[in-house]
Amino acid sequence: MNVLTSIKAVRKGAKELALLSDEERVALLERAAATLLDRCDEILSANEIDLEESREKGIKDAILHRIALPKEKLESTVQAMRSVGKLPCPIGKVKERRLLDEGLLLEKVTYPLGVIGMIFEARPDAMIQIISLAIKSGNGIILKGGSEAKNTNQAIARILSDSLDGAKWMLLLSSHSDVDMMLKAEKDIDLIIPRGSNEFVRHVMENTHIPVMGHADGICSVYIDNEADLEKAVRVATDAKVQYPAACNAAETILVHRDIAAAFLPRFKESLDSYNVIIHADEETRKYIECLPASEEDYHTEYLALEVAIKVVKDIDEAIEHIANHSSHHTDAIVTENKDKIVRFFNEVDSADVFANASTRFADGFRFGLGAEVGISTSKLHARGPVGLDGLTTTKWQLRGSGNIVASYSGKNGKQFLHKELDV
Amino acid sequence: MNVLTSIKAVRKGAKELALLSDEERVALLERAAATLLDRCDEILSANEIDLEESREKGIKDAILHRIALPKEKLESTVQAMRSVGKLPCPIGKVKERRLLDEGLLLEKVTYPLGVIGMIFEARPDAMIQIISLAIKSGNGIILKGGSEAKNTNQAIARILSDSLDGAKWMLLLSSHSDVDMMLKAEKDIDLIIPRGSNEFVRHVMENTHIPVMGHADGICSVYIDNEADLEKAVRVATDAKVQYPAACNAAETILVHRDIAAAFLPRFKESLDSYNVIIHADEETRKYIECLPASEEDYHTEYLALEVAIKVVKDIDEAIEHIANHSSHHTDAIVTENKDKIVRFFNEVDSADVFANASTRFADGFRFGLGAEVGISTSKLHARGPVGLDGLTTTKWQLRGSGNIVASYSGKNGKQFLHKELDV
Repeated sequence: MNVLTSIKAVRKGAKELALLSDEERVALLERAAATLLDRCDEILSANEIDLEESREKGIKDAILHRIALPKEKLESTVQAMRSVGKLPCPIGKVKERRLLDEGLLLEKVTYPLGVIGMIFEARPDAMIQIISLAIKSGNGIILKGGSEAKNTNQAIARILSDSLDGAKWMLLLSSHSDVDMMLKAEKDIDLIIPRGSNEFVRHVMENTHIPVMGHADGICSVYIDNEADLEKAVRVATDAKVQYPAACNAAETILVHRDIAAAFLPRFKESLDSYNVIIHADEETRKYIECLPASEEDYHTEYLALEVAIKVVKDIDEAIEHIANHSSHHTDAIVTENKDKIVRFFNEVDSADVFANASTRFADGFRFGLGAEVGISTSKLHARGPVGLDGLTTTKWQLRGSGNIVASYSGKNGKQFLHKELDV
Repeated sequence: MNVLTSIKAVRKGAKELALLSDEERVALLERAAATLLDRCDEILSANEIDLEESREKGIKDAILHRIALPKEKLESTVQAMRSVGKLPCPIGKVKERRLLDEGLLLEKVTYPLGVIGMIFEARPDAMIQIISLAIKSGNGIILKGGSEAKNTNQAIARILSDSLDGAKWMLLLSSHSDVDMMLKAEKDIDLIIPRGSNEFVRHVMENTHIPVMGHADGICSVYIDNEADLEKAVRVATDAKVQYPAACNAAETILVHRDIAAAFLPRFKESLDSYNVIIHADEETRKYIECLPASEEDYHTEYLALEVAIKVVKDIDEAIEHIANHSSHHTDAIVTENKDKIVRFFNEVDSADVFANASTRFADGFRFGLGAEVGISTSKLHARGPVGLDGLTTTKWQLRGSGNIVASYSGKNGKQFLHKELDV
C-alpha cells in the first residue's frame, strides 16, 4: 500500500474516531495506557536498540537523553496519557448560541479538525503525548518521528494498533520521502505541526498548502526594567536562560535598563558564571562585566545552549523596539515593579506569550494548565502560544429552523432579526 | 513613495490604532460616518463616473448594480457603520483566566491581528463595511477594490483620510501589480482576505506565505430527506436557489431522497419555473420532471445563476457522501422532520455551516448576528463560516508573577501547580 493510500485510510478512520463519545475516547486512552504498561518490555528493548545504534553513530549525550525512554519515564508518560483522558472534552462544546428569530436557533459548536500531520523530533514520550491529545480531541494523526527513535516509535505504534482495534485513525511514517507525501496531501490532512530545527520548520512552511502550526525560531527576551526588584531580576533571567537551555522558551537575549545596569549586571554575571554561561554583550554592558563582545548577529541568534546575549537599553521603548526587531514573537518577559509598564509591555510586545516577573520557561502547555501540548505556535491565527486540545478543534455553525427562508427578511417589509444571545 | 513603504507605514499606523480604547475607536467610526454623509455628494458624483465608464465598457447590469452606490444605499451603509461601533468591543477580552500557583496569574487576552490585506470586488459599500470592522477591531487595513469602482473607492478613502487625521492605518491600492506586492509583504500583513472569482482566490492562496482566509468555491447543497415536510422543502430549496443566486451561499445542488422524489420534484419544478430556473438532473429525477440531463461536471459547478443541479439519492448516507465529494465545505442544509437525522447530518457533514430546515442563504455575518462580515471562510482554522470582528482578533497569553521560576516546579521535590480556573 503506498503512502497516499494509507493517508486516505487515516482520514476514513478519523471520521469514525470523531463520531465517538467522550466516554468512548476516554476508554480508548485507558486501554492504550494499560497495554503500553503491560507490554512495556517490548518498548524498553526497542529503545535499547535505538540507543545502541545512536551511540554507535556518535550521537551527542543531549540527544541520547531525549531518545531514552527508561521504565520510569514511560510510566510517567502513560500517567500523563490518563490525565489527558480526564481533561474536559473539547468536542461538542457550544461556543455561541443565538436565537436569530423565533424558531431559528444558531449554535457554534466545536468539532475535531480532522487529520493532523505531526513531524516531531526523536522523543518517543512526545509521540505518546501527541497520540493522547489526538485521541481525546477526536483527530486522526499521521506521525513522522525522528529516525533515531524509530524502533521505539514502531513498538509504541504496534502496541497501540493491537490494543485499539487496528487504530485506523493513526499512521506512523518512517522515511523522509514520506514527509514530502504528507506535505502534498492537502485534501486529507487538515493541519501540519512540525517540530525540529528552524530550517526544517521553515522548509515545511514553504513547501505545503496545508496550514502549518508551530514556530521556527524561539528567540525569547527578558527585559530588566530600572524599576525591577534586583533579586527577582537575577532569579528570573537566570532561570529563563539556564533551566533548560535547549528549549524554545529559553531566553536568548537579556535587555537591561541603563539605570539598573551597574547594580544588576555584576550580580547577574555571578549567577550565570555558576552555570558556566558564555556571555556576549554590547559595549555598555562590558563597562560593568567582563565578557565577549556581541555582534548584531548575536541578537538574532537562538543559542539553545548556555550562551546569552546582553544589551543595555535606554528605556522601555528601546526594549520594546529591540524585541519588535529581533524577537521571534514567541515569549518575551519584563521584570519590573511598575504595573503601568507591565501593561505597556503586554500591549505593545507582539508575541504569543508576554510575561511579567516570571521566567520565559513557563511558556508550556502543561505549565499553562492545558494538560499537554502538541507544540507552541507563533502564528497569530487559530492557536497562539502553547497548543493543547482547543487548538486541535474547529467549529461548525449549526442552524436549526422550521422552513425559514431569507426572502422573509428581505426588502422594505422584511422581518427584523431578533438576534437574542442565549446562554451556552 | 513605493507600495512597500506605504504598507510599512500602515503597520506603524495600525500599532497606534491598536492602542486606542474602544471609546476612541467608536468616536472614529462616528466621525467617519458623519463626514461620509456630509460629503456624500463627492461620493455620489465619483460613483456616477464609475457607472458611466462601466456602461461604456458594456459591463453587465448585475455588476453595474453592485457598483452603484445611490444615496439611499450610502446612507444605510453609513448606518451599518454606526451599528458596528455599537457592537461589543472584541479587544481586551479575557478568554481564559487561570491561577497557575499563588501569585502566578495566567490570562489569555484578545488583541487585534495587526494589518489585514483585503482584496474585494467592485462594491463600494463593502469597502465601508470592511473599514468599519477594521476600525472597531483595531486593525490596520490595506484595501484593493475592483477597478470598476475605483473613483468611488478613492472618494471614500479621501474623505476618511481627511476626517480621521490622515487614517495612517489605512491604504487603498489601485493597480493589479500592487496586489502582488501585498502578497509578498509577509512581515507587514498578518492576514489576506480575498474576495472575487474562484480562480482569483485560488491564485492568492497559492502565491503568498501570508495566511489567507476566505473561500474559493461556494458549492452549497440542500438535501431533501424522505421525512421532510414537503411544503418546507419546496420553500427552503427555492429560497436557497433563487433569493440571490449570485451569492456564494446560494444552493447549486439539490439532493432528493428516492422515497419523496415523486411528491417533491413536480412541486419543486413548478416553484423553480416561476423564477425561470434552468434545471440539470440525473436520469431518475427526469422520470418525474422534464429538464436537462446533468453530467458529473454539473455537480461540481457553481452556477451563481438561476440554474441548479438535482440528483436523487437512495438515503441520507448517499446524500452525506455526495456532499463530501462535491461540496466546497461552505454551507449545506438538510430538510427533515427527523431530529436524529439532523444530528447525523450536522455531525457528519464537514462544512463551515450546517443547517436544518433553513435556507443556505442565512449563511451571512449580518444574519448570524455578527454585525457584519469581512467574508466567509471555508478554512477549518481560526475563523470558519461568516467572519466578523472575532475573526480579526488574535490572543496573547499574559502571565503575571512575582519572580517565579520554573526551577521551583522541577525535579523530585518540585512544587505542584495549582491550575485553578478563575471566572473571566
